[in-house]
Amino acid sequence: MEEIRSKDNPRVQLYMKLASQKKARAQEGKFVLEGFKLLQEAVLSGIEVEAAYLTRESLESGREELEALSGVRQAFLVSGAAAGRLAQSRSPQGVYAVCKIPESRFAVNPAGKYIGLWGLQDPGNVGTVIRTADALGMDGVVLSEGSCDLYSLKVLRAAMGSAFRLPVLVTPMEAFLRESGLTSFASVVDTSAPSILDTRFPPGCILLIGNEGNGLSDEQVSKCTHRVTIPMKGRAESFNAAMAATIFIWEMARGMD
Amino acid sequence: MEEIRSKDNPRVQLYMKLASQKKARAQEGKFVLEGFKLLQEAVLSGIEVEAAYLTRESLESGREELEALSGVRQAFLVSGAAAGRLAQSRSPQGVYAVCKIPESRFAVNPAGKYIGLWGLQDPGNVGTVIRTADALGMDGVVLSEGSCDLYSLKVLRAAMGSAFRLPVLVTPMEAFLRESGLTSFASVVDTSAPSILDTRFPPGCILLIGNEGNGLSDEQVSKCTHRVTIPMKGRAESFNAAMAATIFIWEMARGMD
Repeated sequence: MEEIRSKDNPRVQLYMKLASQKKARAQEGKFVLEGFKLLQEAVLSGIEVEAAYLTRESLESGREELEALSGVRQAFLVSGAAAGRLAQSRSPQGVYAVCKIPESRFAVNPAGKYIGLWGLQDPGNVGTVIRTADALGMDGVVLSEGSCDLYSLKVLRAAMGSAFRLPVLVTPMEAFLRESGLTSFASVVDTSAPSILDTRFPPGCILLIGNEGNGLSDEQVSKCTHRVTIPMKGRAESFNAAMAATIFIWEMARGMD
Repeated sequence: MEEIRSKDNPRVQLYMKLASQKKARAQEGKFVLEGFKLLQEAVLSGIEVEAAYLTRESLESGREELEALSGVRQAFLVSGAAAGRLAQSRSPQGVYAVCKIPESRFAVNPAGKYIGLWGLQDPGNVGTVIRTADALGMDGVVLSEGSCDLYSLKVLRAAMGSAFRLPVLVTPMEAFLRESGLTSFASVVDTSAPSILDTRFPPGCILLIGNEGNGLSDEQVSKCTHRVTIPMKGRAESFNAAMAATIFIWEMARGMD
């Protein structure tokens, strides 16, 4: 296995660019990931792994996830400065990969249930919502173009592999709402809006969650068919965006039984 | 208003120590907070604010939250290196305060509903659960002694003031479960455990959430009266701890109607 030691190696340079720049990911059509589990999830989900970079320690770890490496085109040993440069997480496992961004498998099921994230900026929130939507059997997530990048390492990490499994579409939200034929529900913080407890989510619907700081704007709400709110009993003024999404996903999933 | 310019000023030094060290907070019985909103929430909740540090820009901002300053014992102007040192957040507002840790207002209501966090390590998760528990009208949160510190800035920020409003108890969890008289439910990832959909949460109960990485250990589960699980429909293996807590809180709150 070829060994890479220098942080100036072009492969290390490319990795760093893909890790830090959304624009580079779009241009190259590639993204990076880190960690045993995420690499395994990528391979199992049919993601094309172009190159894997592994420290000697990771190779000698005996972790069963390494079996996934049989699906990897090229693997390199990394050491010294090169390995130090690749590590982005707080407790790096010495496993890094460059992957091809797959074509989105997203397709509108006229009887499906979807979550739409409109302008979310926190990668942890976006990843967590994708994970929850996957766990509760939603048909997909629609991510507005102004939201944070699906293929950022932080989103992928928070999604724990669900970003590879669940169909996700990145698209201008307004056009999607107009053309998809789905019934849309705008989640709002407004006691005069219909309560989630009185709402039935019909087959073929999408629930929209707005930006962390401001929620959905009036204009965004006006593009949706319905409004819906979560009644609050305590004194907190609102929910964290991911928490609100979780409650909506849970209620939508329950309606599917 | 007295002005503090040097980062070596003892008040700045104390602030830094309280901001970074749990031990210092315990010894001094004080914590720090940052931002207009959090300062306002603290004052409105009866937290004793010993000293506030404000940049000229924040004072001239005309923000209505500054009215809360009338409840503050001492206020100082900070500038230059001192102001730079105090800022812990990514977009600092120039508002900092040292507060007294209040006595916990937590008391067991024999008909109440509680959330127990047993060994949670992520301050964002702990803060978010406290915020959600507040918003949905839980009676309190019990935080195990091994969890991350309630008065860390990251917990307070994620809780958005709910850490001041909702009664929170920090205590050894096992003894609490034994002595509180509450019916306890261990949340587990185990398809053989009773589903949350078939569970009624009785008055006087507490739902336990385990560590982010491992969930509740078998030993922790054995200290609880019941087990309960969230059925998963998709392919994700588990929920984020805060997401699981949100679903449980939502279902417990619904049972209170």
